[in-house]
Amino acid sequence: MTQHNLPTLYPIQYRDLIDRALIEDLGRGGDLTSSATVPPDLVGTARLVTRESGIVAGTQVAMAVFRALDQEVVRVSSAQDGASVGVADELLVVTGSVRSILAAERTALNFLGRLGGIATLTGRFVAAVAGHGAVIVCTRKTTPGLRTLEKYAVRCGDGANHRFGLDDAVLIKDNHLLAAGGVRNAVERARAMVGHTVTVELEVDTLEQLEEALALGVDAVLLDNMSLEELRRAVEMVAGRIVTEASGGVTLDNVAEIAATGVDLISVGALTHSVRSLDVSLELELAPA
Amino acid sequence: MTQHNLPTLYPIQYRDLIDRALIEDLGRGGDLTSSATVPPDLVGTARLVTRESGIVAGTQVAMAVFRALDQEVVRVSSAQDGASVGVADELLVVTGSVRSILAAERTALNFLGRLGGIATLTGRFVAAVAGHGAVIVCTRKTTPGLRTLEKYAVRCGDGANHRFGLDDAVLIKDNHLLAAGGVRNAVERARAMVGHTVTVELEVDTLEQLEEALALGVDAVLLDNMSLEELRRAVEMVAGRIVTEASGGVTLDNVAEIAATGVDLISVGALTHSVRSLDVSLELELAPA
Amino acid sequence: MTQHNLPTLYPIQYRDLIDRALIEDLGRGGDLTSSATVPPDLVGTARLVTRESGIVAGTQVAMAVFRALDQEVVRVSSAQDGASVGVADELLVVTGSVRSILAAERTALNFLGRLGGIATLTGRFVAAVAGHGAVIVCTRKTTPGLRTLEKYAVRCGDGANHRFGLDDAVLIKDNHLLAAGGVRNAVERARAMVGHTVTVELEVDTLEQLEEALALGVDAVLLDNMSLEELRRAVEMVAGRIVTEASGGVTLDNVAEIAATGVDLISVGALTHSVRSLDVSLELELAPA
Amino acid sequence: MTQHNLPTLYPIQYRDLIDRALIEDLGRGGDLTSSATVPPDLVGTARLVTRESGIVAGTQVAMAVFRALDQEVVRVSSAQDGASVGVADELLVVTGSVRSILAAERTALNFLGRLGGIATLTGRFVAAVAGHGAVIVCTRKTTPGLRTLEKYAVRCGDGANHRFGLDDAVLIKDNHLLAAGGVRNAVERARAMVGHTVTVELEVDTLEQLEEALALGVDAVLLDNMSLEELRRAVEMVAGRIVTEASGGVTLDNVAEIAATGVDLISVGALTHSVRSLDVSLELELAPA
Amino acid sequence: MTQHNLPTLYPIQYRDLIDRALIEDLGRGGDLTSSATVPPDLVGTARLVTRESGIVAGTQVAMAVFRALDQEVVRVSSAQDGASVGVADELLVVTGSVRSILAAERTALNFLGRLGGIATLTGRFVAAVAGHGAVIVCTRKTTPGLRTLEKYAVRCGDGANHRFGLDDAVLIKDNHLLAAGGVRNAVERARAMVGHTVTVELEVDTLEQLEEALALGVDAVLLDNMSLEELRRAVEMVAGRIVTEASGGVTLDNVAEIAATGVDLISVGALTHSVRSLDVSLELELAPA
Amino acid sequence: MTQHNLPTLYPIQYRDLIDRALIEDLGRGGDLTSSATVPPDLVGTARLVTRESGIVAGTQVAMAVFRALDQEVVRVSSAQDGASVGVADELLVVTGSVRSILAAERTALNFLGRLGGIATLTGRFVAAVAGHGAVIVCTRKTTPGLRTLEKYAVRCGDGANHRFGLDDAVLIKDNHLLAAGGVRNAVERARAMVGHTVTVELEVDTLEQLEEALALGVDAVLLDNMSLEELRRAVEMVAGRIVTEASGGVTLDNVAEIAATGVDLISVGALTHSVRSLDVSLELELAPA
Repeated sequence: MTQHNLPTLYPIQYRDLIDRALIEDLGRGGDLTSSATVPPDLVGTARLVTRESGIVAGTQVAMAVFRALDQEVVRVSSAQDGASVGVADELLVVTGSVRSILAAERTALNFLGRLGGIATLTGRFVAAVAGHGAVIVCTRKTTPGLRTLEKYAVRCGDGANHRFGLDDAVLIKDNHLLAAGGVRNAVERARAMVGHTVTVELEVDTLEQLEEALALGVDAVLLDNMSLEELRRAVEMVAGRIVTEASGGVTLDNVAEIAATGVDLISVGALTHSVRSLDVSLELELAPA
Repeated sequence: MTQHNLPTLYPIQYRDLIDRALIEDLGRGGDLTSSATVPPDLVGTARLVTRESGIVAGTQVAMAVFRALDQEVVRVSSAQDGASVGVADELLVVTGSVRSILAAERTALNFLGRLGGIATLTGRFVAAVAGHGAVIVCTRKTTPGLRTLEKYAVRCGDGANHRFGLDDAVLIKDNHLLAAGGVRNAVERARAMVGHTVTVELEVDTLEQLEEALALGVDAVLLDNMSLEELRRAVEMVAGRIVTEASGGVTLDNVAEIAATGVDLISVGALTHSVRSLDVSLELELAPA
Repeated sequence: MTQHNLPTLYPIQYRDLIDRALIEDLGRGGDLTSSATVPPDLVGTARLVTRESGIVAGTQVAMAVFRALDQEVVRVSSAQDGASVGVADELLVVTGSVRSILAAERTALNFLGRLGGIATLTGRFVAAVAGHGAVIVCTRKTTPGLRTLEKYAVRCGDGANHRFGLDDAVLIKDNHLLAAGGVRNAVERARAMVGHTVTVELEVDTLEQLEEALALGVDAVLLDNMSLEELRRAVEMVAGRIVTEASGGVTLDNVAEIAATGVDLISVGALTHSVRSLDVSLELELAPA
Repeated sequence: MTQHNLPTLYPIQYRDLIDRALIEDLGRGGDLTSSATVPPDLVGTARLVTRESGIVAGTQVAMAVFRALDQEVVRVSSAQDGASVGVADELLVVTGSVRSILAAERTALNFLGRLGGIATLTGRFVAAVAGHGAVIVCTRKTTPGLRTLEKYAVRCGDGANHRFGLDDAVLIKDNHLLAAGGVRNAVERARAMVGHTVTVELEVDTLEQLEEALALGVDAVLLDNMSLEELRRAVEMVAGRIVTEASGGVTLDNVAEIAATGVDLISVGALTHSVRSLDVSLELELAPA
Repeated sequence: MTQHNLPTLYPIQYRDLIDRALIEDLGRGGDLTSSATVPPDLVGTARLVTRESGIVAGTQVAMAVFRALDQEVVRVSSAQDGASVGVADELLVVTGSVRSILAAERTALNFLGRLGGIATLTGRFVAAVAGHGAVIVCTRKTTPGLRTLEKYAVRCGDGANHRFGLDDAVLIKDNHLLAAGGVRNAVERARAMVGHTVTVELEVDTLEQLEEALALGVDAVLLDNMSLEELRRAVEMVAGRIVTEASGGVTLDNVAEIAATGVDLISVGALTHSVRSLDVSLELELAPA
Repeated sequence: MTQHNLPTLYPIQYRDLIDRALIEDLGRGGDLTSSATVPPDLVGTARLVTRESGIVAGTQVAMAVFRALDQEVVRVSSAQDGASVGVADELLVVTGSVRSILAAERTALNFLGRLGGIATLTGRFVAAVAGHGAVIVCTRKTTPGLRTLEKYAVRCGDGANHRFGLDDAVLIKDNHLLAAGGVRNAVERARAMVGHTVTVELEVDTLEQLEEALALGVDAVLLDNMSLEELRRAVEMVAGRIVTEASGGVTLDNVAEIAATGVDLISVGALTHSVRSLDVSLELELAPA
């Protein structure tokens, strides 16, 4: 496994999301089943274990779910975000009130499952391009409200983040070109609009557009839905002067070929828009850890 | 297509979610690209069209996204939630400021894609069990913060909703039994806890447990990870007295066989935890509708 | 007193409400009186004591009020929610900064008073029907924003909860029948709308409607404003097949007679819409506990 | 009826409260009963009518409830806040989607009932002291989160508002005196603390304390739990120099006697802490207004 | 320096503001620079020190910023709000994770700088009127959302607070007089509107208006943009019966002359609307405190 | 005046801030003065006019303030953000209920004053460097919670925006270098951390550090507190390869000299941390526009 390089995720970045998730599960009446069936003082230990192999993401979020419900629940051990795990590996072990643990279970698993699913899928794409220089990047096709966490999960799988939103980079697409009346207008106006920290990327569909882009001096080009042959020629034309990004129709089956063209980045919407949750379950023991 | 029977979704149920999604995309600096490249008074028409067949869900949410950003954007036409659509069908057509439309585009598509993906996947499971009496139901394995919308999308695909949270039904699972010290304790305490509108369902792993459940008088049984043979025998034992739900390891490949056992319900976590977004794109024309 | 069977109330279910209550009392300038008159380091002990007998509800909420303002305030002792108390009994004893305690006093008392008032009133209705099988249930006539806490307080008084809102049970009333064009339409459409965990209850005003309801197979009937004689006949007709609920004009004077008709449930709007707060006051001593 | 003198209540002052109330009623699944039984395009007219006489408060809030759910619901007519009404009088008539009207019904009625109940109770106290100069004032014993609306409802009943919170007036009570080490300390420190717009009121239990208060120059005295005779002597001692407020154990039975002592104000906690909701119901007609 | 008399500021009064400030700085991706450059376990000590002399305000807010991000950061020492400091004085010393400290740095400094700037400017005005009886008061010209903190900072500089908003005092200005049709109407209606804790102040532009105001019996007069001579005559006319406030065009250059006229209060909008932040910087050492 | 190039500011980006500002001014009791003195149906026209010359910013925000309180208030005319105005120029003219206009007045003016003050101060710096190539940029020294608006106001004054927060660009400062153990470590780790859209800027205090920075290949250098001579030499050394930013101690007096050194950017914290509000007042006429 490669060494991970993850930005610190502070609780203030996900606390509201956890609170909303717990409240939507507790509803107005609370956890009727656990309140009825679990003695109030019963203490136990829960192991959140994988049922399949994958890459870990969101352990601190899952831990925060338990503690958002009950501050007395404590962490016994935790896997590292970004780690590869096999079947039946422990992602998180907590101990505390069984009632609280069972009330928080589904919410904690929903976070671990979704974030782990994103990390795992990202890791598969990253593995598929190993040996080529291409970096796998995500898109803005994230679940509404979860962008910070989903972008973080992509990094856990060794992918890189494309822009976080509409304000931290310019990405000029076909509809913008249509509205601007052409590439030159669009690029020049974008340069005039943005500060020195904001990079300008242009989506190009043809090699002619790429030529124009190079002449205008953008920072990166998004090569949209190009054939492998076009990608190869684009990489040659660019010759390392700016960043090249391949995009459109990327799958686990074709990503290695795309990487082989020499592009710098390959963006994959599926990393966040079409994810199978990592299968994780909670195993309970009626004893403190 | 069957006739849909959808509860009214009021804007107050999803407005906050839309606002958060737009704000997370606009960030602190707004849509730099559109602000730079699109003339401020340019008016256009956007068609949100499918790139694959599926079932529609969330058109009113997508429309609300555009209007949350700019109240002057108006709806020209819209598909019905729950409708089956083919490739290149229009889900929503809006007209208004091009800047606003492009700034809202990704957020609107993210909602339409995810909700349409859930409806479409649900529809596939429903189609697979056609001819049997079984109803496809979802679970609480939803994306944090999106339960209302995701449960609604399941209904667009003709699935039914299982409980919405921990407070609107009792579902006694293995960990509860462990904590309660057996089925009898758990069921009796649950009955004592809940009001007359709350149903009590019990997860059973074996036919022996089922027998005990029937004797205790629960409202429904969740037959967890049983073989087809066990399911058949369980249905016979129950003989229509209570609701039977099959759960665990359900896929599009085996769901018809499971339905053929005669169970009333088949719950499928994948409907919400492992969804491929419906592929929808926005096509712009520089003219009012 | 009977043994209480209360669902766990987690802080996340009432924290926002406490914060809003404290902020509305502190306003923009804080507690001027205590800031002026109480030395900043003065430590004391406050006893929240009853001035009348009743039933306790909301001690954990009151405690959370003190700690929401000042985490250094600690609990010395607390009565149990659901307990019967006499005059001058201690509901809660806290120790800490006198400034903080006095700043939080009114908010803590407002919660204890209102919730205790609901529990106490409920307890009176429950006591009045003792010996009959009838259960006292609340309604949705709760204070806007306080439904979770008020429904919980009803349980502290040994009442049961009716549905929590519009989505966890169907209750078909006269206006729905008018809109649906009759009982059959309404009931059939409701059954088609809801999942297996949602019960269907029908309001009936006459015994003819009750007969129709029984034929259609609802789960419960709300016998609205019926005479005692009608209630008795309704109970006979139902013969235990479904749940019977009496409703309308129930008072402490007539509730025993209503219970004597044999109905299963008696719903009382006054439990939450017409409550006299339990009289509780705070007695301060200038010494740590 | 006297002429009312009400401050304008802007929607921004109660919108959040309405939204929370509607969301707590709609839950995660929406209004199942109306969605099932009411045709989506059915339009009707609802009359919110009294079932008892009283004083109106909160009509604009109730109207805002309907429109928070569905902007197409329109007001046909409305009573004036502060008006006296009899049995079967219309408080509000709205027309629009029947589904939306029935979904909002309970929330609108809960506001109208509680606020009307406060106005009506206040009006009874005001009527009981008619002919005397005393003004009926409320306290801070309000429902958590509803202070603005409840204080407004008191004014609808021709009561006056005491301070809104801890920051807009000083009220030195016995616990503050205990902490400050006496009246002089407390009053002098309070004066030193506050700006020129903040009045200083002192709770006094005895005529000796009153004498000290007069010497120290407070703006008002709260005469706590004094006998009628003591109140009379207090009024004489004060001789109009500062405001006198009687407090403690005030009921509809004794309030006229208290007023007859000549005090300026009588504060009544029950106005907001022990309210019977005004009985209002919604009558539906299946026709636009 | 005079002795300070500050109301307790509870965290609940500024926690939301801190959270919003941190989130707006962390954005969606967190602190990239610190995450990249600072080892995760590195512990250090940060001294927040002045680069100029002034008056301290907001140390508890700055401390809360560090802890809102990371509860493990602890306070080593802190200056007192209201204290005068010189160049290179320590306002706050904290120790903990260097990553967390650097991520919170700018937000903590922004609070300390703005609040210290207000306190310092207030202190200059207060010093300028020393020897006269006049009190320096602030206005409602505060930064949107920061009124509580900015009014508190004025007190740290030994200024007093004018009203906090539109509801805790009446201040009748020229536009109100225009709408009311004259001073008598305005004052009488205001008296009829407000409770006994609310003072009524009238803005007067001429000595004739002042005469009318005195006849009508307001609690205070705001002498707007009067010449020094007019102010002197106004003070004579009032003769201590009510509070006099000078307002309009007050600067550090003319405030002493204004104070010399004998007015009770001098209100200065610049205290909050035109503030230079106190210059504070963070000095880091790579060692625990 | 140059032509402005402003990003579209959508209401969703500032609505919450407006709501909080209005609520903090209305408090719990609303606008007592206007409610008392202004007839409820009185309609008038308000002109928000300058009392000094400057640059306009925030007219749409001020308009939104009036409409957040009362949707019936309409805009008659408005100046353009970014326009230069003289004394007594109209920034905004609105017509509607006088009560509502006066209740919103102070909040609207507070926004216009602060944002106009920032734009005006920025414009002064921009004017001072006219003829040189240097761009004036702001910093993160903004008022907590107002970053989006304050950064926008800088652009109204023809300044450019530096990064919006910690996540949209890397800026390595002295404390990061200390923690990282040197420039090389810091820059390499930063590059490894960030995606292709994120630029890396390094603060350098000496020309030796600049040389190291150039060798390592950062995107920009912040030349911190350098003398004019050092700045000139730095610009020569960089020779246009990367962006140069001068920072530290910049004032209106020295900014032209700094610009003359040839640096690309000059960052000025005072643009947002030490602002005198633009002086704007509201003039009322008792007639519709």
